[in-house]
Amino acid sequence: MTPFKLTEELLAEIEQLIENQQGTELVSLMAEVHYADVAEIINELNEDEATYLIKLLDSDKTSDVLTELDEDVREAILSNLSVKEIAEELEELDTDDAADIVAELPNEIVQEVISEIEDKEHAKDIVELLRYDENSAGGLMAKELVKVNENWNVLTCVKEMRAQAENVTRVHSIYVVDNEGILKGRLSLKDLLTTSTTAPIREVYIPKVDRVDVNEKPEEVAKIMQKYDLEAIPVVDEIGRLVGRITIDDIVDVIREEADRDYQMAAGISQGVEADDSIWELTRARLPWLFLGLLGGVGAAAIMGGFEEMIAKHAILFFFTPLIAAMAGNVGVQSSAIIVQGLANDDLKGSISNRLIKEMLLATLNGLILAAILLLFTWWWNGNFYTALAISLSLVAVIIVAGIIGTFIPLFLDKRGIDPAIATGPFITTSNDIFGILIYFWIAKLVLGI
Amino acid sequence: MTPFKLTEELLAEIEQLIENQQGTELVSLMAEVHYADVAEIINELNEDEATYLIKLLDSDKTSDVLTELDEDVREAILSNLSVKEIAEELEELDTDDAADIVAELPNEIVQEVISEIEDKEHAKDIVELLRYDENSAGGLMAKELVKVNENWNVLTCVKEMRAQAENVTRVHSIYVVDNEGILKGRLSLKDLLTTSTTAPIREVYIPKVDRVDVNEKPEEVAKIMQKYDLEAIPVVDEIGRLVGRITIDDIVDVIREEADRDYQMAAGISQGVEADDSIWELTRARLPWLFLGLLGGVGAAAIMGGFEEMIAKHAILFFFTPLIAAMAGNVGVQSSAIIVQGLANDDLKGSISNRLIKEMLLATLNGLILAAILLLFTWWWNGNFYTALAISLSLVAVIIVAGIIGTFIPLFLDKRGIDPAIATGPFITTSNDIFGILIYFWIAKLVLGI
Repeated sequence: MTPFKLTEELLAEIEQLIENQQGTELVSLMAEVHYADVAEIINELNEDEATYLIKLLDSDKTSDVLTELDEDVREAILSNLSVKEIAEELEELDTDDAADIVAELPNEIVQEVISEIEDKEHAKDIVELLRYDENSAGGLMAKELVKVNENWNVLTCVKEMRAQAENVTRVHSIYVVDNEGILKGRLSLKDLLTTSTTAPIREVYIPKVDRVDVNEKPEEVAKIMQKYDLEAIPVVDEIGRLVGRITIDDIVDVIREEADRDYQMAAGISQGVEADDSIWELTRARLPWLFLGLLGGVGAAAIMGGFEEMIAKHAILFFFTPLIAAMAGNVGVQSSAIIVQGLANDDLKGSISNRLIKEMLLATLNGLILAAILLLFTWWWNGNFYTALAISLSLVAVIIVAGIIGTFIPLFLDKRGIDPAIATGPFITTSNDIFGILIYFWIAKLVLGI
Repeated sequence: MTPFKLTEELLAEIEQLIENQQGTELVSLMAEVHYADVAEIINELNEDEATYLIKLLDSDKTSDVLTELDEDVREAILSNLSVKEIAEELEELDTDDAADIVAELPNEIVQEVISEIEDKEHAKDIVELLRYDENSAGGLMAKELVKVNENWNVLTCVKEMRAQAENVTRVHSIYVVDNEGILKGRLSLKDLLTTSTTAPIREVYIPKVDRVDVNEKPEEVAKIMQKYDLEAIPVVDEIGRLVGRITIDDIVDVIREEADRDYQMAAGISQGVEADDSIWELTRARLPWLFLGLLGGVGAAAIMGGFEEMIAKHAILFFFTPLIAAMAGNVGVQSSAIIVQGLANDDLKGSISNRLIKEMLLATLNGLILAAILLLFTWWWNGNFYTALAISLSLVAVIIVAGIIGTFIPLFLDKRGIDPAIATGPFITTSNDIFGILIYFWIAKLVLGI
């Protein structure tokens, strides 16, 4: 099996077949293509072509294709489908994916779409999932799971399980509940295969099972599943009733999105844009941070304007402001990134003051090494030892202050319940630029006695 | 079940029990604690305490604990265990985890440890895994899997499977091979539960199965498993023989590590350090990038030195160099981050020149908006329209150039097979600082006619 690769030729061939309305050829061409690859193809087609293809293919395939499409493409296609056609797609999907799609539909058609779903149990589950906040375990979970009553025996259990498993793509664990639906424990498939059929479930299940509350944050669910190497975790409501199940593939998406968000925040990009978004969307994501940088730069200019009398005697000081600002920014980004990552991975121990002391020592060490190099260079270049000393001393001071700010701000934000990742990008660079330049000119003034 | 929380009190209690050698109390205290939590506790103990606890607990628990420990803690503990004790731990582990630990052992004891493993099949599998590059599918996979011969029938298959499943923690798929061991397809557990026992496997298996080559890069395996929502993928050798299996929990680690690495690279930190590493390790990871920043700053100073004659007439130009440098850096980081992320997520389509044109339009739009604001401000502040115009025009030019550099460099590195993430951090900031300042003074010279 060679991996699928979307080539220009393949795309041209598909567009040609669509134009000629060669449905049979298209169906047989797509038969062997995985739905994730079909989605990749459809993302490249125009709206009419995409709609034609979706209507042409079977809904057991297209439903999965829909979940993999870019959001704007999906929205466009759905707007061309009838209420009945949308309901048919939802029928084929797991409840979590179906609920995600319903949540994107225009409000006025939601009720109609749901009422067109023939499997009423499925429709009820979807409606229930819509109640939960998108940013919670409830918003991630699916209703598909295999559960058995603790009062059954293994034989009943296997029979029930076979019936339930029809609707569940992947069986990870069999959850055991009591008559009230309260989660009591789990059975593994392996246990079922190796236990006598008359044994009551009550006697064979494992009473210990990891679970999450329906209101838990997705990032917390991700941490728990990663730490304990879980492939699925049951979700319980406020009184402990089993209400759903989260599988690791959804968590992989959470992890990926969280990492992408932190990374973008550090780079001064907001709103989770992608390279293929429109120029307008990219501008909205980038311009605010650039504006912040502009303000910082104007602030720096104003500070330097205040030291204008120095320029006649020590122009060289002004030549080194970009260096000082850059170093302040770099150190600040480094230290804040380490803290933000430590917070995200939950491996920061010890008090804030210990962190600050450590960062101070580290910054002092780095600062002294770099300043020594800079001192020798500037002295050689300019010939004036005191100017060189002023610049180098400032560099040490600026690095220390930048390191402390970079360490303190994310820790402080985190304590306040604000996402510390905001402190890694232009925010920290800009504030460190200003502090850096201010410290620089102060120290220069002091050393040079101006 | 309340989630485990490592408190100061619990840690003190455990240390007390260890000091008093109250083994029975410790064993019963730890009985209910998950191995990942035991690892968290041991990471906080000193070497003697940790070794005592590991020796005290059963190796079916401690083997899993070992895999979760910080690398330096594990190394210290292993150095206190006898060859026989290490072999006992390895015996309990899946082959992939066992091989990872063996790879960390001092060379001189590896052979002895392996020969102490009683299960010779297990030992052979571990040795085989050691052959593979750590940074390949072979280095990630485990030998534990359930495979059946296409010539068996369902009954034989279920029997064989039960026997094999004893050694496999999680059964995802049953792989079907021919007499030569060539991977032919798969069976799902569900299929087995619902098919007649006399049916030959040849007639019921699914001949389509995703697979990866044993030499495939871990990042590629991660992309495939994410794209196709797989929880396990079989690994085949050069001639298509089934040699192992990779499960999603190992891939979650790959994704996390890759994201962490990209993030650190963008922040100017190398070598995958953590907040709790020593000052020396942190310095090694941070100093080289700071040194690069220092060089850039010196370069900028040299450039400004070349425009010294301007300083008497237009000191204000020098006040705005930090602004120009900061904006060049910010724009460069933004555009490179979007490209790097697009490359990592495999969703960049279209040619390099199209990307560059798009980035140019975007940068022009952003640049014009910011420059208009800056023009008004500087004009008002300084009173001289031409200086204000020079600064603002430069800003537009610098933003465009920075955006193009930020887009081009990662694309170029990627084409060359170099990790483009290297282009997101201090590298791009530093080069953009220099280009920015150079362009700035050139344009100022031109506009002001000096």
